[in-house]
Amino acid sequence: MSADGIREIGVGMLGYAFMGKAHSNGFRKIGYMTWPPPLRPKLVAIAGRDEAAVSEAADRYGFERWTTSWEDIIADPAIELFDNLGPNALHAEPTILAAEAGKHVVCEKPLGRTADESFEIWQRVAATGVKHLCAFNYRFVPAVRLAREMIEAGELGEIRHFRGRYLQDWGDDPSLDTWRFHPSEAGSGALGDLGAHVIDLARFLVGDISTVSALVHTFLPGRQVDDAIEAAVEFEVGAIGTIEATRLALGHRNAFQWEINGSKGSLMFDMERLNELQVFRNDGDRARGFKTVLVSETNHPWWEYWWPPGHIVGWGETFVHELHHFLAAIANDTDVAPYGATFEDGYRAAEVCDAIVRSSASGKREAISYR
Amino acid sequence: MSADGIREIGVGMLGYAFMGKAHSNGFRKIGYMTWPPPLRPKLVAIAGRDEAAVSEAADRYGFERWTTSWEDIIADPAIELFDNLGPNALHAEPTILAAEAGKHVVCEKPLGRTADESFEIWQRVAATGVKHLCAFNYRFVPAVRLAREMIEAGELGEIRHFRGRYLQDWGDDPSLDTWRFHPSEAGSGALGDLGAHVIDLARFLVGDISTVSALVHTFLPGRQVDDAIEAAVEFEVGAIGTIEATRLALGHRNAFQWEINGSKGSLMFDMERLNELQVFRNDGDRARGFKTVLVSETNHPWWEYWWPPGHIVGWGETFVHELHHFLAAIANDTDVAPYGATFEDGYRAAEVCDAIVRSSASGKREAISYR
Amino acid sequence: MSADGIREIGVGMLGYAFMGKAHSNGFRKIGYMTWPPPLRPKLVAIAGRDEAAVSEAADRYGFERWTTSWEDIIADPAIELFDNLGPNALHAEPTILAAEAGKHVVCEKPLGRTADESFEIWQRVAATGVKHLCAFNYRFVPAVRLAREMIEAGELGEIRHFRGRYLQDWGDDPSLDTWRFHPSEAGSGALGDLGAHVIDLARFLVGDISTVSALVHTFLPGRQVDDAIEAAVEFEVGAIGTIEATRLALGHRNAFQWEINGSKGSLMFDMERLNELQVFRNDGDRARGFKTVLVSETNHPWWEYWWPPGHIVGWGETFVHELHHFLAAIANDTDVAPYGATFEDGYRAAEVCDAIVRSSASGKREAISYR
Amino acid sequence: MSADGIREIGVGMLGYAFMGKAHSNGFRKIGYMTWPPPLRPKLVAIAGRDEAAVSEAADRYGFERWTTSWEDIIADPAIELFDNLGPNALHAEPTILAAEAGKHVVCEKPLGRTADESFEIWQRVAATGVKHLCAFNYRFVPAVRLAREMIEAGELGEIRHFRGRYLQDWGDDPSLDTWRFHPSEAGSGALGDLGAHVIDLARFLVGDISTVSALVHTFLPGRQVDDAIEAAVEFEVGAIGTIEATRLALGHRNAFQWEINGSKGSLMFDMERLNELQVFRNDGDRARGFKTVLVSETNHPWWEYWWPPGHIVGWGETFVHELHHFLAAIANDTDVAPYGATFEDGYRAAEVCDAIVRSSASGKREAISYR
Repeated sequence: MSADGIREIGVGMLGYAFMGKAHSNGFRKIGYMTWPPPLRPKLVAIAGRDEAAVSEAADRYGFERWTTSWEDIIADPAIELFDNLGPNALHAEPTILAAEAGKHVVCEKPLGRTADESFEIWQRVAATGVKHLCAFNYRFVPAVRLAREMIEAGELGEIRHFRGRYLQDWGDDPSLDTWRFHPSEAGSGALGDLGAHVIDLARFLVGDISTVSALVHTFLPGRQVDDAIEAAVEFEVGAIGTIEATRLALGHRNAFQWEINGSKGSLMFDMERLNELQVFRNDGDRARGFKTVLVSETNHPWWEYWWPPGHIVGWGETFVHELHHFLAAIANDTDVAPYGATFEDGYRAAEVCDAIVRSSASGKREAISYR
Repeated sequence: MSADGIREIGVGMLGYAFMGKAHSNGFRKIGYMTWPPPLRPKLVAIAGRDEAAVSEAADRYGFERWTTSWEDIIADPAIELFDNLGPNALHAEPTILAAEAGKHVVCEKPLGRTADESFEIWQRVAATGVKHLCAFNYRFVPAVRLAREMIEAGELGEIRHFRGRYLQDWGDDPSLDTWRFHPSEAGSGALGDLGAHVIDLARFLVGDISTVSALVHTFLPGRQVDDAIEAAVEFEVGAIGTIEATRLALGHRNAFQWEINGSKGSLMFDMERLNELQVFRNDGDRARGFKTVLVSETNHPWWEYWWPPGHIVGWGETFVHELHHFLAAIANDTDVAPYGATFEDGYRAAEVCDAIVRSSASGKREAISYR
Repeated sequence: MSADGIREIGVGMLGYAFMGKAHSNGFRKIGYMTWPPPLRPKLVAIAGRDEAAVSEAADRYGFERWTTSWEDIIADPAIELFDNLGPNALHAEPTILAAEAGKHVVCEKPLGRTADESFEIWQRVAATGVKHLCAFNYRFVPAVRLAREMIEAGELGEIRHFRGRYLQDWGDDPSLDTWRFHPSEAGSGALGDLGAHVIDLARFLVGDISTVSALVHTFLPGRQVDDAIEAAVEFEVGAIGTIEATRLALGHRNAFQWEINGSKGSLMFDMERLNELQVFRNDGDRARGFKTVLVSETNHPWWEYWWPPGHIVGWGETFVHELHHFLAAIANDTDVAPYGATFEDGYRAAEVCDAIVRSSASGKREAISYR
Repeated sequence: MSADGIREIGVGMLGYAFMGKAHSNGFRKIGYMTWPPPLRPKLVAIAGRDEAAVSEAADRYGFERWTTSWEDIIADPAIELFDNLGPNALHAEPTILAAEAGKHVVCEKPLGRTADESFEIWQRVAATGVKHLCAFNYRFVPAVRLAREMIEAGELGEIRHFRGRYLQDWGDDPSLDTWRFHPSEAGSGALGDLGAHVIDLARFLVGDISTVSALVHTFLPGRQVDDAIEAAVEFEVGAIGTIEATRLALGHRNAFQWEINGSKGSLMFDMERLNELQVFRNDGDRARGFKTVLVSETNHPWWEYWWPPGHIVGWGETFVHELHHFLAAIANDTDVAPYGATFEDGYRAAEVCDAIVRSSASGKREAISYR
């Protein structure tokens, strides 16, 4: 505990690239933007395969030490929270072992490469009693959380439609090569990378999906993972809609767009304008239309931590909110669910991903069942 | 022929409600907005079931006479063009008989209530040699035609995705009753009314659809036609995407939205802003983004007939363009296809509609085959 | 009177170009779109300088005869309404003489080339007792009228700001030559052409302007009229704001944009999306923002005459609404004001235009006083 | 110097509220987001009037110590950079003394309460030879910098128009009381708070302003500073336009909007969508319109420090960029100008503010002259 009575928590991280930067920034900002923080993150150690890169990352982000062996992280008793940002193939083993070593665990999405692997991770980790979070960070966009709160409060009425699509365009280059294009490391392409986000928000906002009628497609010759998926879906609550993800939608860099129609109103969202929520209320006003709500009011989610209304936040802040939520769950021994995604949510998203693959292969509408 | 050498063409119409107003306005404006007109429409007679209403419509729109018997229209030798705007159940017989009486025929969409009926109409009419147009008027939105021209010119490259959805919200009222809710008259609900438009533009812009994996759903208790459809689709050219239509998307009055992604660029459109086309070109410009193109330049489709650039047109003008195209085809004996929809296009859209119904029932991806 | 009891009114027109097309289309559509029409326009005669052009216009728009002498129009007893669309220099004499001949008169804006000339036209015409309309057609955009109704009903509270700008970009071509660039014919450039529209809507929505602090500027070498004006303005009700007009705003074709802020709410508008009104209500809703209102509901201005909600209208329809309003005033002997602009409004706008010119020359804030 | 060879710089701060949070966040993030940082900020001491508040701020943001006496900061040799975020009345003395003590100085805008005071600060500080920055942070929005680069490269041609307005709405509450409403502490209201930002970007993007024709107005009874200003302005390069600022534009939280029209293209911007720049190029493309450019490409300003394209940044990051720029100027002994605002820029903005006040009082167009 520091002088001001705020307890510290030792953090160990696996991975230092894009997600390493995003999570490190999240942990660092919690300490002063969310005041007082539930716990003060202490960046103890970071692990990665490339010695030069991981040592620079440690210096850059302020970790006390670095290692090329993730087992070192797990063995370190000063680390109470293990944050796994490695390639998808490296999610299962380190995460499970860390939990079994008594550390709270965060794991990037998708949880596993398949529903089977995800189930295994969830079950093994849940059995240990530690807190677990699958880093579906888009639940922590203020506009998305506001949408959830409005739906929970019944402001949309009965939900009829969800249409979600995650459109990016960086995939249209045959010379690209990252672990994201290797099935053994990534499991899938746009499906697990982008589609899983759509599935998670669909579940977060509308509830579980009951069936999918889907297509999984690879456009670029020689590419070994999917470039795009399309699905018509049914929800357990009776809503119907679509789930789409692609890396080949030229002009869209990070357009995770969704729309929900209910019997009392509708909501629309686009991640490229993540501070805005479009809200329609069927309230009989002669001036009828969607409101462009800038989600930055003092009574909006997480806004107490930021700036005066209208001074927008960036994509990076979603990690501040997410990791803050997880630290609060640890500090107060409260549930990560339902506002944070647990490993159960990671598993459930994986079941939908698997069903999309099955449906594409079978040509049939596939029902989703959970173990 | 009138004094100025512009030949007249006698027009007979069946139907006087929403579409009667739209088509009458179209015919009347052709005579002076598109100058010189290919033919000058002469409104000879209008038919409808309700004597008071049809007589008022004749007075209002300037028809020389009215009748409660559509057979009168067909029997009148002064009528060279028969425009069928009746309920869907009244499409087949009058249209076929008019064509067999040597009249050129326009029929509102959907052509028939099923693919079988549509095929029959097409075949019988095609056999007579008259010109035929299935009134998919959205091909005649300037922005849609500009999109088609850009795609034809190769400006989008290879097409990867089409996402089309037609969102309206007037259906959420259980007390509503029009012929559109009676299966015998309408055939289907949102599917034939809205979905058929999406299918036609998908075909117009991307090409024929090869498979559908679809859901057809009715939300309102007691409603006898579908409220909404969802489909994941494959195109013959290899593109994949979605087709959606609903009458229960609160906040959207006439939001026929579509997006196309190709290997060189993308296009987006929304009928509620029908004068605009969003255009993305992957041209390496550091200023990278979608252009909001106001389709009103002197070198844009049909703009020679209208106002200076920036002075937008309305939804009603699509009928001016469409009927002008049909009159030009008659005057010059040119093909209605490919820019206008023929009865073959009406039939092909109906095959896709039928496949959507089949897929929803079978739970399988259904291939579309044409006779 | 025709067979259906709708009285006809003989119309004579001076001018056949852009505005001739717009007004002719307006008169023709009134007869069937606004049903039943207050009077049925009968296009008796059209006058213009170029014999070939005016004879073609008569044939095209359906006038019974044409003439190269506007005096013929005024002498014709079958003409009860004189519509003056000539160059600004030709507004005064024909309009006054027509009124003195007992005809109701419409005159395009600006009414005169100066406040003096406008005052003379107004006074001479008002003295005759005929109905008079200065064709500020933008009062007849449904969204503009809805704005006026909301303000009148107090929905905005006390008005603090009006910001209006009319941005076009066709002026950036030194080779262009039309009467609009000749001071003797046009009086002014962007000021009378575009600025007058801004001034009229400012007056229509907020009330009379009390002072202007202005700049009038010509950018293109050799151009004899102004290209742009800028003004900081005060209103009699205490609001302050800006009035701007330019023909050199590249990228804007017809962007007549205005915003009004009151103590209870705000409104925003852009003529390039003329079917939309942006509405902000300070009502305490947690979902706070501007609504994009598609002004096409059955309870919106003039919408009873058009299509189902969401099926938008075009720029040309403003003339249908405006001329319908004038015909109704004639038919029922009701006032053209306050929803239509009278010649008094034309004169008052001219006083503001003159004050802008004075302020630019004097370098002083100029008060506007009315005779 | 730390182990990695990155030199540290001791920072002392005056003020701990809104701006204290923004600048502290800026300094903290420079150390790991902009890698390698030009200097590594070491937060040495923070000063403020309220002991409880300033001590908490020190703990929260990680300052080594705190004080209620700004003189302590200036006396501390470990502090090489003094960052003045106090009320406007506290800008002059501490800033000047800090510079005279050899510290580099940052001062929030407006630099002084008047042009005289601003000139004094600039002259006294410039004489010392330290680096100085007036914290007009909006120069450091990526879209604003991209705009500057495009204009410098001639992509807009000759500039004709600048229209800038800063619209907020929090001022419409008579019960509000902060130092911002006290003339002795703030100098002015919307003028210095918001108008100064508009003036600075006008100068940054178009160049110096030569005349203003302005209104300064207070709407709320009893309020002692202005609520809003309006000005028609001329630029030295020949452009004309408007500058507006208000705290009473309901519905706008932080809408700092500007538009620039040149002879080759136009740009538009809105701070509420600060990741976007609207770009129009008059390049003859048939698809003519403004592009919505998401300023987040790898070749866009500062984007090397952030996320993949499309993952937007927030308002707070402007301070990261700004303070990074200042640290680089210190580290490399390069000029703060022209991309950063120096105290000369602070003074020049103040001259325009003073001219606006003079013009409002005199009723005359006021020329701006610099000492």
